[in-house]
Amino acid sequence: MKRSFIREILEATNSNTISFAGGLPNHDLFPIEELSQCASNVLAQKTTWQYSTSNGLPSLRRAIANLYNQEGFETSEENILITTGSQQALYILARYYQNSPIIIEAPSYLGATNSFRLNNLTMHPLPLRDDGIDAEQFKQASHKTKLSYLIPDYQNPSTTTYSETKRQAIAKIVEQEGVVLIEDSPYSDIYFEKKYRPISSYIPNRSFHLGSFSKSLAPSLRIGWIRANTKLLDELLPIKESIDLHSCGLSQAILSEYLKGTLRFQTHLQKLQNHYRNKMNTFCDLLDTHLPQFQYTRPQGGMFVYGHLEGVDIYALLEKCMRANVVFVPADEFFIDDRQSGAIRLNFTNTTPQEMAKGIEVIKRALES
Amino acid sequence: MKRSFIREILEATNSNTISFAGGLPNHDLFPIEELSQCASNVLAQKTTWQYSTSNGLPSLRRAIANLYNQEGFETSEENILITTGSQQALYILARYYQNSPIIIEAPSYLGATNSFRLNNLTMHPLPLRDDGIDAEQFKQASHKTKLSYLIPDYQNPSTTTYSETKRQAIAKIVEQEGVVLIEDSPYSDIYFEKKYRPISSYIPNRSFHLGSFSKSLAPSLRIGWIRANTKLLDELLPIKESIDLHSCGLSQAILSEYLKGTLRFQTHLQKLQNHYRNKMNTFCDLLDTHLPQFQYTRPQGGMFVYGHLEGVDIYALLEKCMRANVVFVPADEFFIDDRQSGAIRLNFTNTTPQEMAKGIEVIKRALES
Repeated sequence: MKRSFIREILEATNSNTISFAGGLPNHDLFPIEELSQCASNVLAQKTTWQYSTSNGLPSLRRAIANLYNQEGFETSEENILITTGSQQALYILARYYQNSPIIIEAPSYLGATNSFRLNNLTMHPLPLRDDGIDAEQFKQASHKTKLSYLIPDYQNPSTTTYSETKRQAIAKIVEQEGVVLIEDSPYSDIYFEKKYRPISSYIPNRSFHLGSFSKSLAPSLRIGWIRANTKLLDELLPIKESIDLHSCGLSQAILSEYLKGTLRFQTHLQKLQNHYRNKMNTFCDLLDTHLPQFQYTRPQGGMFVYGHLEGVDIYALLEKCMRANVVFVPADEFFIDDRQSGAIRLNFTNTTPQEMAKGIEVIKRALES
Repeated sequence: MKRSFIREILEATNSNTISFAGGLPNHDLFPIEELSQCASNVLAQKTTWQYSTSNGLPSLRRAIANLYNQEGFETSEENILITTGSQQALYILARYYQNSPIIIEAPSYLGATNSFRLNNLTMHPLPLRDDGIDAEQFKQASHKTKLSYLIPDYQNPSTTTYSETKRQAIAKIVEQEGVVLIEDSPYSDIYFEKKYRPISSYIPNRSFHLGSFSKSLAPSLRIGWIRANTKLLDELLPIKESIDLHSCGLSQAILSEYLKGTLRFQTHLQKLQNHYRNKMNTFCDLLDTHLPQFQYTRPQGGMFVYGHLEGVDIYALLEKCMRANVVFVPADEFFIDDRQSGAIRLNFTNTTPQEMAKGIEVIKRALES
């Protein structure tokens, strides 16, 4: 299995690099003071440091269930399995469905496709349109392939967002054809316009809905979750237990304490959304002005801009940019086949407006040279 | 795969249960004040909350390498892979060696054998003698089976400790027969007499040495590690990355800060050893007085006492005891075949002398009834 190219780029960068690669949230937005306050409340308790149960801290599972309930997606503590980041949720599901065929999007998330490959799932990619995969193509594929993996909210890498209509159409096909849906939503809270209803909410017994605090609060906590019906979760628990007994107890206790104030989390999310929306608009304004040949759609959420540079050798471009200390990710990395997509993914969350301008200038010059 | 019977017992217990089951360290011994102080130092730093590298925080890897170097086992940062508890180390190795045959001890650690089973390793158990497996039997088995899993320090469950001579004999066979050794040492710091030299130190290029802070500091941190040569570790890294990207960043930062004071850790370990040694002796004195038919050897370290009750139906005994709110683990659970070992494992770390006396009295009466 190839290692994540993105992580290799990340590890090659230094403090002078302007990085449009990676998916690092902006560390200035971590609510460090509040989380540290929560930490000092819970670290004094002995139970915070002891072994706990494999499915996760009951108080945290309740808090996450509450987040779903607030949005009208009926969920109880028993529907939540805590995982060590969303990545572990993907691994557990890949392990559970090992050797199965699976419908994925093209492009798709590298952390997922790597886990699928490691567990010998045969991937059947469906091309992404403006509002998600084509419903008819999904229906055709679902006649043979009863497992699917979709990222309907501000997809990494393509930023594609499924429309309401498309979500309902997908849900209907899942129900009719007896498909199981793995719905990966790490960016669902980082929206710039509105929050979409999860596809899983239409098909709660045929879906795994994956969430994470890595983008909304802080990645190093390594806390994500799977929302599913209890029967499905029960089958995953032995795998979770075998992988790491349980996820970090400190992180779970801190998050559980933090989420006691639901208003606190909502206020933080609004701040995050405003900040990232502004950043995205600044970045896109700069792209429009200085790189008009870059064809893209402004994202509705998430941390990336994705687009095409027609007729450009993307890897040659990256090489030139890297020599000038600017990095991004060629979108070919996100396809499971060999292809020249002519597309690139640009992260905008972890650069200042000055760095954005400088980085885009470097890309522009590299294109001209 | 069957779920851990121990965890099922644990989940069935309530606040009135006297539990000799499980392997919970005593929560009164967690150095909460010092760890919390370390936490408040590192939580103020933004990098503590950000994504980090899959192999682990460099400062923590250096600190762990130092612990090895202090004992004369030459180790550098590059020899350490941080894992989400020892359990994850076991899973990663089981995944890496999937479908292989493996030599194990009988009895063995359930968390390991479950991971081996999940990854389709064929287990070849060798019976434990007083000082470990028989060297000649190991040699015979190693002609066919080139992978082995041993727990030489105060084994869970049997408390068996390999003698110096036996360690050298095993190392020699590993070298001569081209075997790879997975040496699991979660209890190596919880010794009552002396610390033994790891078998891995004789065969650093043919071994994975597994360590953990779960018993020595606090389990909820979920931080363990694999010590191996860099070539072996490089092969494990893609699996680690696929499983959870990296282990909890908060835990790693807190531990890294804590281990800056090596004297602090050593002082804590001495306190731990003294406390557990006293507890063990108290427990064994009570056993000798009130349960003379229980045949066992006082352990040299770890958290358990293991012994036999000749001619007793252990599961019937457990059922009687559970009705009186006392639990322990029948040793049959730790063998991969169906057998009536007539043995039980008793944990002594998490009960007071009063509870010990009461619990032993319950077992005594259940035996007589």
